[in-house]
This record gives sequence, C-alpha cells and structure tokens, in this order.
Amino acid sequence: MAQTKNDAGERYVDSVTWKNNRLVLLEQTRLPLETYFEELTEVGQVWDAIYKLKVRGAPAIGVAAGYGLYLSIMHLPNESYEAFWQELQKNSNYLASARPTAVNLCWALDRMKRRVQAAAGENIPAIKQLLLKEAHAIKDENSAICRNIGVHALPFIKDGMGLLTHCNAGPIATASRYGTALAPMIMAHEQGIKIKVYADETRPLNQGSRLTAWELQTAGIDVTLICDNMAAMVMSEGKVQGVFVGCDRVARNGDFANKIGTYGVAILAKEHGIPFYVAAPSSTIDFAIASAKEIVIEQRKPEEITCGFGVRTAPENIKVYNPAFDVTPARYVTAIITEKGAVTPPFETQMVKLFK
Amino acid sequence: MAQTKNDAGERYVDSVTWKNNRLVLLEQTRLPLETYFEELTEVGQVWDAIYKLKVRGAPAIGVAAGYGLYLSIMHLPNESYEAFWQELQKNSNYLASARPTAVNLCWALDRMKRRVQAAAGENIPAIKQLLLKEAHAIKDENSAICRNIGVHALPFIKDGMGLLTHCNAGPIATASRYGTALAPMIMAHEQGIKIKVYADETRPLNQGSRLTAWELQTAGIDVTLICDNMAAMVMSEGKVQGVFVGCDRVARNGDFANKIGTYGVAILAKEHGIPFYVAAPSSTIDFAIASAKEIVIEQRKPEEITCGFGVRTAPENIKVYNPAFDVTPARYVTAIITEKGAVTPPFETQMVKLFK
Repeated sequence: MAQTKNDAGERYVDSVTWKNNRLVLLEQTRLPLETYFEELTEVGQVWDAIYKLKVRGAPAIGVAAGYGLYLSIMHLPNESYEAFWQELQKNSNYLASARPTAVNLCWALDRMKRRVQAAAGENIPAIKQLLLKEAHAIKDENSAICRNIGVHALPFIKDGMGLLTHCNAGPIATASRYGTALAPMIMAHEQGIKIKVYADETRPLNQGSRLTAWELQTAGIDVTLICDNMAAMVMSEGKVQGVFVGCDRVARNGDFANKIGTYGVAILAKEHGIPFYVAAPSSTIDFAIASAKEIVIEQRKPEEITCGFGVRTAPENIKVYNPAFDVTPARYVTAIITEKGAVTPPFETQMVKLFK
Repeated sequence: MAQTKNDAGERYVDSVTWKNNRLVLLEQTRLPLETYFEELTEVGQVWDAIYKLKVRGAPAIGVAAGYGLYLSIMHLPNESYEAFWQELQKNSNYLASARPTAVNLCWALDRMKRRVQAAAGENIPAIKQLLLKEAHAIKDENSAICRNIGVHALPFIKDGMGLLTHCNAGPIATASRYGTALAPMIMAHEQGIKIKVYADETRPLNQGSRLTAWELQTAGIDVTLICDNMAAMVMSEGKVQGVFVGCDRVARNGDFANKIGTYGVAILAKEHGIPFYVAAPSSTIDFAIASAKEIVIEQRKPEEITCGFGVRTAPENIKVYNPAFDVTPARYVTAIITEKGAVTPPFETQMVKLFK
C-alpha cells in the first residue's frame, strides 16, 4: 500500500497519500525496522501523527496538515457558512498546536483557510471539494518543486560518480518521489546513470542511517552507510565526486543553515577538491537576512547525545553541547539548486536575478 | 579503592594496581555507568579480564599481563628451575591467547620471561621477587613515559585555552596518571592552568563519551561532550585553540594512523588555523615504514554502526563501511610529542635526531 512503481519500475514509497477518503501515512518513527502505513480518518489522529513525528519533514507535515484539515470538516453538515468557518478555524488551530514551531504546518493551514475565504458564498459541499483540491494542490506543487530540483541538479552528476549526503532531505520528508538533496540521485538512478552514495549516519538523531539509508536502499540505489567521522577518509580514498545536502534556511549571500555536521562536510569537500551542492526549495531562501550570522541556532537536549536511543553512553552530569544546526559560509558552496534553476557565485546577484 | 589523590589533591583513578598480593583492575566495560574495581588472584581471572576488555588500552594490557604472569607463579612450589620455567611458559602462552593481536601483551610477557632467563640459577623465591619487580618496572616505566609526554606537551597549553580531543588516549588506557593525549590537559589542570576541553564522542564505539569524558570529569577538568560532527562548529566559534590526539602508529615521515575520524579533525583544525598535536610514545614510531601509505587499515563489523549498543538504527542488509583507523598526513601535524621531546617538521629529520 502507498508503494507504487516509478518510471524506471523501481518501488517508490509515498509518505503522505489520500486514498478512499483516508489519509495514508508512512509511520516514520517505525523506520528503518518496519515499513508500516497508518490510515487516518479523524483529525485527532492527524494531530497525534504530527505530534509524535509519525509524519516529519517540513513539506510532508504541510501536506499532511492540508489533508488533515479536510478530514476535520468533510463530514460536517452542509449548513451555514458561518458554522462551517468556525469549525474550520477551530480545527486549524487544533492541528497547528501539534507542532507550534513547524512553519510549514501553519503555512499549509493558512493556505487552506484562504481558499475557503475566497470561496465564501458558495455552498458547503462545493467548498469542501475546493478544500480537498487545495490539499492535493499543496502536495502536487511540492512534488513539482522536488522534481525540478532534481532536473536542475542532474547535470552535475556523471555516470560512475560517488556521492555523499548528510542527514535526510529525501522523499519521505517531502511526501514526494524525489525529495530535495536526494532528488538528483534518485533521478540519476531512474535514468540508468550509475552512482554510489555514501550516507552519513548524522548523529545524534541518526536521520542518515534511519531514513536516508532506508530511502536510497528502497529506491534501489547503491548506498553505503558511514559514521559522520568517516567522510574525510572516504573522500581521501577518491570515492566521492560530489556532495549534496539539503538546507533549512539560505541567507541572501548564500550562507546557509542545515543539520549539524554539514559545515564540517563542506570543509572536507573543499580540502579534497570535491564540489558541494545545496538543494534549496525557494521557500528556504530568506532574502531578509544578509548572512547566516543572523541565524540563531537551536540547542537541543543533552540526552540525545548521552543517552541516544535509550542507551546511556556518557557519564552522569557530563556537560554537553548539542546544537541542532550549523552554518556553512557561502564560500564552501559550489551551487545552490532551486526549483527554478542552479545558482553559482556570486550567490546574491544570481539569486536576485532568478527570483526577483 | 585504587583511587588516590594527585599532587593537586584531585581524585585520580589508577586502572591497574598491585595491592595486598592482588591485581586490582578498574572494570572498564562498566564505565561510564559505574566505577567498579575487581580484585584478581588467579591467572584465569586475568585472562578473562583481558579477553572481555575489562582492561583495555595497549599499555594497560601490558601492565596487567606482567602482574598476571606473576600471579600465575607466585604460589608455585619452590622446587626445580626447570619445572618453574615450564609452568611460566605455559601460563605466558595462555595469557597471550587472550588477545592474540595485542602487541603490548606479548611484549610484556616476553620481557617477564627474559627476566627469568637472565636470573637462571638463582633460587625460585628470588626469581619470583624479580618477576614482581619486573611487573612493577613495566608499570613505572610506562607511567614515566606518559608523564614525560605531558611535560613536553605542556608548553603548548596556555591559561584559558579551549582544547579538543578525539577518541581515548587517557589514564585508564595506560594504567597511568596522565595517559598520552590527555597528559598535557591533566598536567595543566594540576598546575592550575585553566582549560576547557571538548571531547568528541567518537563513533561507532564512543570511546570519547564513555571513557575520555569520564576520565576528564573524574580529574576535575571542565569537559564538554560533543558529537564528532560538531567539532567544526565548535572550532568556528573560536572555542578551540589546540587539538591533542593519541596515535596507533607513526611513520618515518610523520604520517600517522589513529582512530577513525582523526584525519577529519586534523583538516578542520587546519582550516581554522588551530594547532594539531599528536601524543606518541616512542614505541608507536615505526622507522621501518616511510609513510602511512604502508599502513593497512582494519575493517570492523557493520553491526557496530547499524546496531550500536544493542539498538538497531539502520535498515537490514544495508552496506556499511567501517574502518577502525584513518591516516593523517604529516602536513596537518603541528608537533609530534614523545617522551623524549616534541618534534616539529621536518619530522623525519627531527625524529631521527631525537631517537637514533
């Protein structure tokens, strides 16, 4: 279920789908041990899935929220617009409370509400259909963005290349077939271009070993798992000809924030003369900030490091530094790849040209 | 027990001691959860302790083997030299079988046997005493080497510095008060020089979080645990003014092999203009090899990465690359610090001058 074949005939797992009036979610917390799908029919189940990270990744959360909001109103009586609107507002606030800091969650819910406001005056059954269409549109637009990132990144990949990625910016985080950083890899594989991918495990939460390795393996790609501290050796052995990473936020000058460890990988790539590419949907580019110096880095709980996956591997009361992200200066970046095209230095000029 | 105070009045844990005719071992597999000492009276217990890594670290294993061999013959009847020698040989072979690839284990046992051969003709009680003295000598010489590495490394540390280390080259691995890479840190702390140390957790076996963090914490040093992939960020924030690591083998030209991840740290240090020091007892310097290209790197089990500490964090059947060591070219090294002095480039000339 929710596993379809792609053009190349490979299995392809869609993490958020709408089927038979149900929201079907890949239960991401069970990965990589189990590929299990949950079918949700109530908004409370969607809240729970977002809260418990059963669905994760900014774009995937947005897609799930769209369908979740539709689920919350699909069985409402077809009565007054006022009553319908109030119920929609209530359910939207409820869903937003599942992960208050997830920007994409609010963005998707707001978009759904705007669709209703724009249709005020139409009858309720028609508005319901518009809402489902809007949820599909959120998903489809997101899929198109990922696909286009792949299209613009693909020219950087040649047959026989070894590639390296850090953390997870793949299909299941984006409820799409390609993801962002993994888009060119999956697309290359579909087109018969031979690649070999090294996936950093990405401590402390191991998104690389739990999710990226699983996604690439599922896509039929030759993937090798390494610890973060092995990237330098793999590069020195000539096994890597390109690094692709995702990003959380790109500043106007091309500096960007991404999962902790990305900056180190960028330095290692530079030292070994390996190109370093950032996959960045335009929604992550923040023209309001001049450089990454303005990005505040969130600190996370010490237990993620001292007691990872329930096993204590550090002394009691040890001091811990656990930044969630780091910042990579633009000078380490070969190209920033957006859905509208790939941008090379000078990034500010080039990004303005592409987007303004 | 086996915890004494050092000159500065700080607690100091000795991992291998001889007390009341017993071999007292810090049970290292219980760290960092528990500081537990085992008292051994039989050679079988020593074999078991070495085999089960209750005592680990090349120098510490050598020290334990010396005392273990003495334990095996201390209660023998004081009869013929021939019978004594045969029993000694048998027990030496037995102990050596606990970790056949541990070079220091055989080295210590051979040294003990040579002491007996040199005393052939003396009476058995006298030979027994010589053996105990030899075991003490192995320990004392090793302690002196670690202390002298500290003495020669200390000038590189200034008050207020932040330091970073990778893996574990500390007191408990060496059955000494100082260890090798940690020697200058512990010595600085004893002399009232304020330092702040960042300890890489060192995947996949977490020697940094389990052992180094514990040792520095126990010594009263301000230590902060980080994941390996956080070293670059910590450096970019100006928190580190020196990196100290141990080593497994140094080539004639100054290239060296050490725990996987060391090479990456060296690159990051260079990129941030931070000096990078290698603590190397002269026993690790191999003049027979011209460069590290001649060092073969051992590959370890995938399960260390996919199923660390009993928790599965990667998909079944995933391909894994798990080298135990990496090689850092000499050009990244600021100084190699031996018990006879610190050596700066050109390393070959300087090391020959110091040792030949």
